[in-house]
Amino acid sequence: MSARASLLGIADLGADDVGRILDTAGRFGQVMDRDIKKVPTLRGRTVVNLFLEPSTRTSTSFELAAKRLSADVLSIKGTGTSMDKGETLKDTILTLEAYDPDVFVIRHPQVGACRLADGYTDASVVNAGDGTGEHPSQALLDLYTVQREVGPIKGLHVAIVGDVLHSRVARSGIRAFTLMGAKVTVVAPPTLVPRHLAEALGAEVSSDIRDIADADIVYVLRMQLERMGAGGFVPSLDEYARMYQVDHARLRPGQRVMHAGPVNRGVEISGALVDDPETLIEAQATNGVVVRMAVLYDVATGAAGGSAQGDAALEAA
Amino acid sequence: MSARASLLGIADLGADDVGRILDTAGRFGQVMDRDIKKVPTLRGRTVVNLFLEPSTRTSTSFELAAKRLSADVLSIKGTGTSMDKGETLKDTILTLEAYDPDVFVIRHPQVGACRLADGYTDASVVNAGDGTGEHPSQALLDLYTVQREVGPIKGLHVAIVGDVLHSRVARSGIRAFTLMGAKVTVVAPPTLVPRHLAEALGAEVSSDIRDIADADIVYVLRMQLERMGAGGFVPSLDEYARMYQVDHARLRPGQRVMHAGPVNRGVEISGALVDDPETLIEAQATNGVVVRMAVLYDVATGAAGGSAQGDAALEAA
Amino acid sequence: MSARASLLGIADLGADDVGRILDTAGRFGQVMDRDIKKVPTLRGRTVVNLFLEPSTRTSTSFELAAKRLSADVLSIKGTGTSMDKGETLKDTILTLEAYDPDVFVIRHPQVGACRLADGYTDASVVNAGDGTGEHPSQALLDLYTVQREVGPIKGLHVAIVGDVLHSRVARSGIRAFTLMGAKVTVVAPPTLVPRHLAEALGAEVSSDIRDIADADIVYVLRMQLERMGAGGFVPSLDEYARMYQVDHARLRPGQRVMHAGPVNRGVEISGALVDDPETLIEAQATNGVVVRMAVLYDVATGAAGGSAQGDAALEAA
Repeated sequence: MSARASLLGIADLGADDVGRILDTAGRFGQVMDRDIKKVPTLRGRTVVNLFLEPSTRTSTSFELAAKRLSADVLSIKGTGTSMDKGETLKDTILTLEAYDPDVFVIRHPQVGACRLADGYTDASVVNAGDGTGEHPSQALLDLYTVQREVGPIKGLHVAIVGDVLHSRVARSGIRAFTLMGAKVTVVAPPTLVPRHLAEALGAEVSSDIRDIADADIVYVLRMQLERMGAGGFVPSLDEYARMYQVDHARLRPGQRVMHAGPVNRGVEISGALVDDPETLIEAQATNGVVVRMAVLYDVATGAAGGSAQGDAALEAA
Repeated sequence: MSARASLLGIADLGADDVGRILDTAGRFGQVMDRDIKKVPTLRGRTVVNLFLEPSTRTSTSFELAAKRLSADVLSIKGTGTSMDKGETLKDTILTLEAYDPDVFVIRHPQVGACRLADGYTDASVVNAGDGTGEHPSQALLDLYTVQREVGPIKGLHVAIVGDVLHSRVARSGIRAFTLMGAKVTVVAPPTLVPRHLAEALGAEVSSDIRDIADADIVYVLRMQLERMGAGGFVPSLDEYARMYQVDHARLRPGQRVMHAGPVNRGVEISGALVDDPETLIEAQATNGVVVRMAVLYDVATGAAGGSAQGDAALEAA
Repeated sequence: MSARASLLGIADLGADDVGRILDTAGRFGQVMDRDIKKVPTLRGRTVVNLFLEPSTRTSTSFELAAKRLSADVLSIKGTGTSMDKGETLKDTILTLEAYDPDVFVIRHPQVGACRLADGYTDASVVNAGDGTGEHPSQALLDLYTVQREVGPIKGLHVAIVGDVLHSRVARSGIRAFTLMGAKVTVVAPPTLVPRHLAEALGAEVSSDIRDIADADIVYVLRMQLERMGAGGFVPSLDEYARMYQVDHARLRPGQRVMHAGPVNRGVEISGALVDDPETLIEAQATNGVVVRMAVLYDVATGAAGGSAQGDAALEAA
């Protein structure tokens, strides 16, 4: 019917694309306040969720988003599938593509896997996290959350604290906040921040936690314990917590704290701060569904290409 | 719209609550005799099944119940989720709660986990089994089964045989049958029956299998092989089977046998008895869906609080 | 309402049954070309997918087929279920059967498991692969694919190449092609072809790969690496590939290549051939959904018994 698009990374988007998706999310947000939280927008369309890494919140959030759009959803996890028989991602996609799905939502342990998959299918592909690459729907819901809870992104100062090296959330977040006119400072021990990358992305770099003082938003990254291995990136978790843990003592009044979850209480963030209702953490989780509804709608209807037509379809819902 | 309730244990219910749920189940039972086994009652509502222990029948039964009520269902199993990354139950609930589900159905290996979860969410929580705590929907379907197949509960004598120590089915069952006016006798080797608990619950205790002779209903508990470990609760399974296995030889005509499944044929119950159509075992399984439809309806619509409104909604379906 | 049937193996079907299912698939195929790929045919019916072996394509294909028929679908995988507690297939079926499903779709590692299950339930059973037994829906979609892409089956010559010994695809395929009037030749190393079986099925047997030269269709079987164990069926995979790998060099123009997937590139088939659009491999995958819609429709509505009534139901959709 209409052209399809994919969402592989924030790097591919312009500010107008971001604005359009956030607007759509806002309109779906109104639907979600109703008693019957469902629209017929994607009825008869098929969304395949292919998650080849463990996930609760992202997979659940996309699955619920698709169901609330009335799409048929197939959820495929990385175990119990032919991937166990040594099948390649290419062949899995080709097989699934043959069923004529409208959208693939893919999480994969390797950078670039979603872009690769996009080359093998006529369906839209949404990157739900590719190794240490990108996690664009997370960055979009972060922008949406800040816009609703704090105000316009333009001119804000965002400090991103922690394990930037292993974080796709950071990569997408730096790009997204910068694109929308925020200033970004990355704060991390030198071993955990690839300086040339942060600079290439337009972020300042600091290894002094006191440099979060100037920020309006303090975005705390998950310490990816399961990826640390014997890598020796930090002397010890205790040492890391002592030097870089974000807690109430290190914040000044008015600063808003974000975290994409799941949190390690007492490691990168104090338990008391996680439970503080002033943070944006719960709002981030809450906004996941409507932003992902907007993303699925945007790619499945090719809203990028013809917004008038797209708008009509949304109103009809 | 209306107040929500949770179902955490039989201990929280009065006889009127039980009566209301069983009545609702009866009405859903009539719907299930139709060709199209589906009502629009919970359309646009979201039920999250969070099963952190293996389960076929309970998880399937709740999933099917939710689908037949036209709810959107998310099923989350204990593997392949962020729980694997060390996330706590609290944080999992907070994340999922942010999606604004109407009901959580939770199975968890630890006693009290569902009550804990209930404190973290505005959604209804249904306990689908918490360690050795309670399993209230099982007890409700057991009551429903006896009421339909045998008659009024009041005045019946129920013998519960076997591994009471590890059984949430027993804990909920003793409470439920007693609440509705039955007399309960627990029959088990001394190591497998916590005497003070059985007495506190209002049940008589015996270690002599011949004491099942007086019962109208003989409820056989699953021997939880996977929980026996090196605990030494019974000398051996053969010894247990010889002393306590319920089979035709130990029953008198007219006694009705129940088992919540899955059975260990030849351990706590003879294979021949499992296959005897006079038992209530198949009816228990069959009644699982309509009773769980009634439970979901009851908690999601807050039927406990305003039955007139609740009745109208059900008729409309 | 109407009599139910099961699909346990091609061995149970006549040419008229196959013709009826392929006709139904053709009509569903027209629906799938629409924007909204969904019919209300099985609304309010329940399909239980019980997959006790890993699978991507078959389980996904049946799940999507059921959803596009508007059925409620329960998908149960072999892990995280009571099967882990040592429950037998019989008891699992009896439990699930109590929920009054309309159709069970079952994959099981043992030959005959689906026929066994069929004896325990009033629901229809569809064999989605039982050990080295049969895989009838695969054979039906293969026939459908050949009929659409090549022409009538009658009179064609089909060469089936490879690990016949471990292949349910081969067993169902030989029966199906033969039933519909094709000539079948099996080509494999002597250790991988049970000569008496192939002959009993009406196929010729050869161990010389050059004998594929006469065939119109070259059907390549997956080398079941995970079943080879230390069985010593082939000296080495390299050796097997050198002797029997199907690649462009061994084909003549006009021969059409099939493979049920997942493929082992470079083992039983060359990567270049997998990627060649002239093969029927992608069409096989694509046709999986409509053929499985037809199978589910056929068994659930008892179309075998009363085709006039069946036709009316389909038109209504």
